[in-house]
Amino acid sequence: MATRITLRLDFDAGRRLGPGKVALLEAIRRHGSIAGAGREFGMAYRRAWLLVDELNRMFSQPLVLARGGGRDGGGAALTDLGAEIVTQYRRAEAKIERQAAIEIRSIEQHLAPSGEDGSQGHG
Amino acid sequence: MATRITLRLDFDAGRRLGPGKVALLEAIRRHGSIAGAGREFGMAYRRAWLLVDELNRMFSQPLVLARGGGRDGGGAALTDLGAEIVTQYRRAEAKIERQAAIEIRSIEQHLAPSGEDGSQGHG
Repeated sequence: MATRITLRLDFDAGRRLGPGKVALLEAIRRHGSIAGAGREFGMAYRRAWLLVDELNRMFSQPLVLARGGGRDGGGAALTDLGAEIVTQYRRAEAKIERQAAIEIRSIEQHLAPSGEDGSQGHG
Repeated sequence: MATRITLRLDFDAGRRLGPGKVALLEAIRRHGSIAGAGREFGMAYRRAWLLVDELNRMFSQPLVLARGGGRDGGGAALTDLGAEIVTQYRRAEAKIERQAAIEIRSIEQHLAPSGEDGSQGHG
């Protein structure tokens, strides 16, 4: 079974790093723009921009540099720190898949056969 | 810094186990009732009951047994499987804190000094 394992880090002062923000950073790297990255997730430009702004303020240096122009203007790129944070987060996640495999298997083995049940309903 | 690490497991067919459901199971064990557990999290009884129902259907056997009565009626307890799932989940989480400590520290060390910034605003 392809269980997806997700890691979330809650730092102090309400600062949080999880799968959504990390995926957005990776998409910015791929697309070279905040708008393009947002579109990949069906996210309004403003929402993507606010997340980037939050990430940039969370850390001692920006994770994303927007170049020039306005909205769809100048493109954006990860800084060295942005790339580093993505790497460390993904590395932690990969470790978890290996290290907690025993516990995760032992939860999985008790799952009901999938599709047996409507899952959302309760009646 | 006391970073909180949270694990979420996405199985197939939209079935998911994460911190909310696990905390609810632990609260049911403490309170001996679904209503009591829900109250601890300021959760409506119906919401708590639906989560329990979802958990019970997710696995091959129920995780929670409600005893007798209606709403605040008869109390509830974890089954052996319920206790087992909680144990494995918490064990996986504890392993992560140990095993991914290096990556998490290396993310933490780049955080901005906390309280420096309004965090929610975007200036």
